[in-house]
Amino acid sequence: MSDTEQSVRPSIKRSPEALQEAEEQFLIQEQQDPASPYYRGDTPSPSCSSPPARRRFMLGAMAALGAAGAQGIAHAATPGAIERKVPPDATKIQGVGVGVDDGGYGMRSQFETEVRVRYATKTTESSWSFTPLQNSMGMITPSGLHYERHHGGIATIDPGTHELFVHGMVKQARKFSMADLRRYPALSRIMFMECSGNGLTEWAKPTMKTVQGTHGLTSTSEWVGVPLSTILNEVGLKPGAKWLLAEGGDAAVMTRSIPLEKAMKDCLLAYGQNGEAIRPEQGYPVRLFVPGYEGNMSIKWLRRIEVSDKPFMTREETSKYTDLMPDGTALQFSFLMEAKSVITFPSGEMVLRKPGFYEISGLAWSGRGAVKRVEVSVDGGKTWKNATLHGPVLPICHTRFSLPWEWDGKEAILQSRCTDETGYVQPTIKQLVKERGIYSVYHLNGIQSWKVAANGEVSNVHHY
Amino acid sequence: MSDTEQSVRPSIKRSPEALQEAEEQFLIQEQQDPASPYYRGDTPSPSCSSPPARRRFMLGAMAALGAAGAQGIAHAATPGAIERKVPPDATKIQGVGVGVDDGGYGMRSQFETEVRVRYATKTTESSWSFTPLQNSMGMITPSGLHYERHHGGIATIDPGTHELFVHGMVKQARKFSMADLRRYPALSRIMFMECSGNGLTEWAKPTMKTVQGTHGLTSTSEWVGVPLSTILNEVGLKPGAKWLLAEGGDAAVMTRSIPLEKAMKDCLLAYGQNGEAIRPEQGYPVRLFVPGYEGNMSIKWLRRIEVSDKPFMTREETSKYTDLMPDGTALQFSFLMEAKSVITFPSGEMVLRKPGFYEISGLAWSGRGAVKRVEVSVDGGKTWKNATLHGPVLPICHTRFSLPWEWDGKEAILQSRCTDETGYVQPTIKQLVKERGIYSVYHLNGIQSWKVAANGEVSNVHHY
Repeated sequence: MSDTEQSVRPSIKRSPEALQEAEEQFLIQEQQDPASPYYRGDTPSPSCSSPPARRRFMLGAMAALGAAGAQGIAHAATPGAIERKVPPDATKIQGVGVGVDDGGYGMRSQFETEVRVRYATKTTESSWSFTPLQNSMGMITPSGLHYERHHGGIATIDPGTHELFVHGMVKQARKFSMADLRRYPALSRIMFMECSGNGLTEWAKPTMKTVQGTHGLTSTSEWVGVPLSTILNEVGLKPGAKWLLAEGGDAAVMTRSIPLEKAMKDCLLAYGQNGEAIRPEQGYPVRLFVPGYEGNMSIKWLRRIEVSDKPFMTREETSKYTDLMPDGTALQFSFLMEAKSVITFPSGEMVLRKPGFYEISGLAWSGRGAVKRVEVSVDGGKTWKNATLHGPVLPICHTRFSLPWEWDGKEAILQSRCTDETGYVQPTIKQLVKERGIYSVYHLNGIQSWKVAANGEVSNVHHY
Repeated sequence: MSDTEQSVRPSIKRSPEALQEAEEQFLIQEQQDPASPYYRGDTPSPSCSSPPARRRFMLGAMAALGAAGAQGIAHAATPGAIERKVPPDATKIQGVGVGVDDGGYGMRSQFETEVRVRYATKTTESSWSFTPLQNSMGMITPSGLHYERHHGGIATIDPGTHELFVHGMVKQARKFSMADLRRYPALSRIMFMECSGNGLTEWAKPTMKTVQGTHGLTSTSEWVGVPLSTILNEVGLKPGAKWLLAEGGDAAVMTRSIPLEKAMKDCLLAYGQNGEAIRPEQGYPVRLFVPGYEGNMSIKWLRRIEVSDKPFMTREETSKYTDLMPDGTALQFSFLMEAKSVITFPSGEMVLRKPGFYEISGLAWSGRGAVKRVEVSVDGGKTWKNATLHGPVLPICHTRFSLPWEWDGKEAILQSRCTDETGYVQPTIKQLVKERGIYSVYHLNGIQSWKVAANGEVSNVHHY
């Protein structure tokens, strides 16, 4: 439990039977609530089809896109691509000229078809989408494939008129235009962001079929912006200030309380992502970035910061984003994203065509700092080997790991286990369930197991 | 001079007068050759208009796009964006749903308009485009804004049928499909790539108006691929092998000789860029990546590697990509990109609206390794201060530097000077011209000077 967590007691102490009933009711209720991560809509949950080859770079995930894809809009058949004629031999005819069909801003190849897959929520506005980690390479997530979680859709905001209002327990309340913010010294840091709900379907049993579904709510970008401390020092903090409210300019007017200590330590007012302005889905023109904390705190389309002496108890930290414990209490302000890892190759729904050499590859990260070690097991956790960490190993950042593997053609259970620089070791799902039950929804950082069947088919299993 | 450089003597020794004449003829000839970096076309060279604000994130560079932009194709008015309705208050209406209009692959904001600008070559197929460094943030270049240099246009290649043929002085010649290449252990490295012609217009006098024009032929990506050594070990090298030929599958069938020692040391067969497949303009589905060497050696759309005991003396290393010296000889195989830096803010065509605080910011890099120090001068090189290097400082990678500056409203000359880990110090342009004359075309890594006039206008000057 992190030192910022607090326990919120419900009004009635429950007996084990009452608790079970309450849990069932909770789940039923959640399953009917479009805003809930447990919501079960009409459309199928993502089960991205994967080809038998190593990475499905030639096949599409369009089939898995479901409702969102069917609404087909003004884009090429392959999202984010320009359709070009494919000559039988590209050496025999002139290629496409510089800037001729991309207007000076390049797009990906028409043969690349992986997409973010939307979770089957009833509305598209309160929904989320998963990054196709099965195709991930290195540490950076392409901005076009960064996972999404919106509570009221993607706000469209004109940066020329947008303002950030900073007020409350400050010496001089002030509005900052985007031009104002960009005048201050900037910092850039490559960091992951993870939704606290990443893996929420996996508490009780393996549910999602692919790593996109089980782990796709984490992504890494190079974030650029002004340290929040710079702006807070600029307005001046009054004695007794302890918390601040961050408020988004979207339809949900998303709000979270941030401890001032964290705000002064390493939070960014981020306007840059992977070398250009942050994407609309990431809160354009400016978002809060709270390193290592659950993604929903990094308020997007940031329009207001209010400084106070106590947390604001917003909907997102009372009704939502609290972790229900087996004793009926709930963890509140469970901010930190603990150490976690997952094997991305091979992973669910892939097929290994024949025994022989494979490179096991995956991602590890920790909200507490740098990844120190990743161990990989191919026998369901009986034995472990240290994987190679691909540098640079950065704090609060996806770290690529790999391990060569000679598959003998027999059933195998692949697992990875991350240890971060604080010595924290990624637990098993069983250990987490023992402590937290199966209804805490958030913060599932347990060890993922992929079963490789003798026929080479890879599937999501729970294995202890 | 790098240890891989060789001197190629022309057939006739020239007198100083004959040399001058030859240089003039060379220039005239080059200016008429559409394939030459000295070619002067009809359309104006890039002179991106810049707004008076710090970074022109709200204004467009479309006006500067010239011919390329005018050919306007099937894309939104702002390249790489989806046009969305801007509500007066985004909190009052639902935002855009997940995946609703992007098909699961997100695009940049419609308010972002910076583009690569094409150089005024006669054809678009043999041309290049410059990265808008004036808007750069951090170290990563967005893939859509990575500079381009094509000799026969962008090849469109189906990765499902593409093959890389490796032959010559090898024990077992072999063809590799993309699926084959992806089976091998992969490496990821964040590295810059720079065109040897970056700055070619600046030898004799300041010519380009913006940093996009003077320095925009360098970009940084996270590159992912198989070490070339892995594939060479797989086919087995015969005794006496010393060089290899890399051949592209584009209309130019671009070819370069690579020393085997370099190939075995750190070259990559790169299929990944910033977390997804490399972009079509970068050689999709696979390119050679030669770390720290001039960009043209990193052959795109790679289809053939031939191992030999000597260099192949291709057009690109005899007629082109050699550096003409004042004595009439030419440097051949001048591979290395030496230490270099440039201030990106403030830079040419920007206007500082009033005296006061500014953060000077820029990029530094070296083909020899990591940047060790960047010094900044605001008085034309009389005094220097160490700039802050923004980590991670990686070898052969753009490194962001910054220095706080209080502008007193008087004329100032801003310069930056990079020292790399080998101790090499970035020279002045004057020093380079003294040694190489003004017709060596390539490898201008001299110190850039920006003049800030008393009225705040920033312009490109030569200052020693």
